[in-house]
Amino acid sequence: MGPHVVHGVRPLGGAVTDVIVEDGLITSVVAGGRAPADLPTLVDGAGHILLPGLVESHVHLDKTLFGLPWRSNTAGPTRYDRIANEQRLLADFQVPIAERAGPLIEHCIARGSLHFRSHVDVQALWGLRHVEAMLALRERFRGMATIELVAFPQAGMLISDGVAGLMREALEMGADVVGGIDPAGIDRDPIRHLETVFDLAERYRKAVDIHLHDPGDLGRWEIERIADMTEATGLAGRVTISHAYCLGAFPVADLAPLADRLAKLRISIMTCAPPHVTVPPVAWLRSRGVNVCSGSDGIRDAWSPMGSGDMLERAWLIALRYGWSKDEELAAAFDVVSAGGARALDIDKYGLEPGCHADFVLVPGENLAAAVIDRSPHRTVVGRGRVLARDGTFISV
Amino acid sequence: MGPHVVHGVRPLGGAVTDVIVEDGLITSVVAGGRAPADLPTLVDGAGHILLPGLVESHVHLDKTLFGLPWRSNTAGPTRYDRIANEQRLLADFQVPIAERAGPLIEHCIARGSLHFRSHVDVQALWGLRHVEAMLALRERFRGMATIELVAFPQAGMLISDGVAGLMREALEMGADVVGGIDPAGIDRDPIRHLETVFDLAERYRKAVDIHLHDPGDLGRWEIERIADMTEATGLAGRVTISHAYCLGAFPVADLAPLADRLAKLRISIMTCAPPHVTVPPVAWLRSRGVNVCSGSDGIRDAWSPMGSGDMLERAWLIALRYGWSKDEELAAAFDVVSAGGARALDIDKYGLEPGCHADFVLVPGENLAAAVIDRSPHRTVVGRGRVLARDGTFISV
Repeated sequence: MGPHVVHGVRPLGGAVTDVIVEDGLITSVVAGGRAPADLPTLVDGAGHILLPGLVESHVHLDKTLFGLPWRSNTAGPTRYDRIANEQRLLADFQVPIAERAGPLIEHCIARGSLHFRSHVDVQALWGLRHVEAMLALRERFRGMATIELVAFPQAGMLISDGVAGLMREALEMGADVVGGIDPAGIDRDPIRHLETVFDLAERYRKAVDIHLHDPGDLGRWEIERIADMTEATGLAGRVTISHAYCLGAFPVADLAPLADRLAKLRISIMTCAPPHVTVPPVAWLRSRGVNVCSGSDGIRDAWSPMGSGDMLERAWLIALRYGWSKDEELAAAFDVVSAGGARALDIDKYGLEPGCHADFVLVPGENLAAAVIDRSPHRTVVGRGRVLARDGTFISV
Repeated sequence: MGPHVVHGVRPLGGAVTDVIVEDGLITSVVAGGRAPADLPTLVDGAGHILLPGLVESHVHLDKTLFGLPWRSNTAGPTRYDRIANEQRLLADFQVPIAERAGPLIEHCIARGSLHFRSHVDVQALWGLRHVEAMLALRERFRGMATIELVAFPQAGMLISDGVAGLMREALEMGADVVGGIDPAGIDRDPIRHLETVFDLAERYRKAVDIHLHDPGDLGRWEIERIADMTEATGLAGRVTISHAYCLGAFPVADLAPLADRLAKLRISIMTCAPPHVTVPPVAWLRSRGVNVCSGSDGIRDAWSPMGSGDMLERAWLIALRYGWSKDEELAAAFDVVSAGGARALDIDKYGLEPGCHADFVLVPGENLAAAVIDRSPHRTVVGRGRVLARDGTFISV
């Protein structure tokens, strides 16, 4: 596609500029809104704030019940209850994944998410069915959104026969990331769990993303072991620890050596900033150089009806969770759902500069802080230079 | 106004009914949508959920900067810093309260709030200026919304010369509730603070609502003293303790005798369910018979840009804060922002039954739980039998 202009936008709430887009890339950013008059218009920005595409760094698209009639949550209180409850529901579920996750991806794109890391259940109960469905769905959205798939052993890897083999197959089929879950709390053999995860990552040259709900000292000890193995396998910069509730259980002073190690190994911490559990000290981790990203986690699934798939709302929830209210704090919350995610997911050509992919969101508002507070639904979304949503509604393309 | 029909609504998400409204009251609820065909239509409900008017039990309307250009938060970290920062900003503020709080009340009404308890600053620095402005604004909204005003000594009562006298004047002018704030932490003389508050309440036959941020054992000790004085002054059923962070600092088993006392004295607990501090154990308190209500607290003011004035969103935030996801939990969150508020504020004729005021909100959705999760902005609001908002937009009347 030849050059087109996004007229009159304010990058991150700054001064008005025109943005010229060609072949899916930002080719130039023209201060003062002075793009050549003969170029066709892609979007009339109307002075809206220009934001880079939001990054949904942790979601479970394959398990969503999005778009279906309301289903009362029937899960018991423990993590095991919830896993078993979901297995009962999804084992023979009649609505195909594409019909649930597809509309959900459109919903998320319409709210500005253009990059996703979706954990995909690999379970003995349904083998690679979820992986196959998500690989197909990724094709449907190619050229619109980046969708990374994690081979995720939700019900355990070692405790469930054949799951490590299924994970290997998932990676051979095209999954991008090796997942793991509570090496101690769920799999009950932390070292063998982590060795299996890192062996797969080394063998297939894949990234790692481990769900870690294990609390307090147990979780912290596991993070130390994840750091050991990241170092030993040369996977620095390719490892994410998701949730890491345990990091909220200590005074930050006690975490300094560990945080410095995470920073050095470029291990990202993913938090959804849930208000009902302890959470990693995000501002402090960032101040020590640790990258932090965020996600919606489950969206309308058997675990919970919560989760809206709106990463600008998530930035607001992060600010609420930590009691942030200053402009620089609201900007930090935005960074977590944008550049922080791009670092964790290693998104190529991310940003609003010439040479970056033309992936961005236009939001009305005064400045970046106000955009996070307002969470306006009136968003225009451009992915790889094409308009994908207007006024918060996905455009069928 | 003669009888009019609200056609085809589902009270709390139940079966479809017509609701007949006359002279600002609900006169009958007709199952199956069979209202007499000759009655004029007030609203075509389109199968939407009918909810009672939401109750904003704790807000600071007089201090809002709503509708003004973005103002970066410049407050220091402590409560004293914030009070001083706000005094600097508001002492000579050029935009009148009516021009800020008026549009904010309209905004809140359009989201379904029809009953407000607004704490109004009574300070030596500006005397009764805020009280006068809010009394006038209350007149402007009479017949649309119930607005209770609390004479609130934000900067302290005993530590600030003449404030107790100003509080007395505020009550004589028409304030409905005697406010208080951190009898120990701010006023530094808890017994004399509480005696002053309860003396005023007794003398003027007013309710009491005390901001209590004081933490842990200190706060709990103050709650015990509030209970003592409630009992001694015969003010059972007319006292609210706002925030009560301290109640989140103990295992619930340790709180049982105190909770039973709160229940017996019908002392309400108001929580905004903030995620960054300890919060009262809402589900447990309710299970012991303690009434709980909620509010937005500050909305876009010098304390914080947070606060949206949307009490359906607040129900969702309450559910998030406590990790609630089951239908009955989401219904409990809704109860806190509706009937719980009506009990705390002692709202007359509250509800959806014949004889109640025709104060309600129509929201699209499948059921009550889904309404809380979705927080649809497409709300129609009826106050005292008149349509006040359509599709989330206030109608100028």
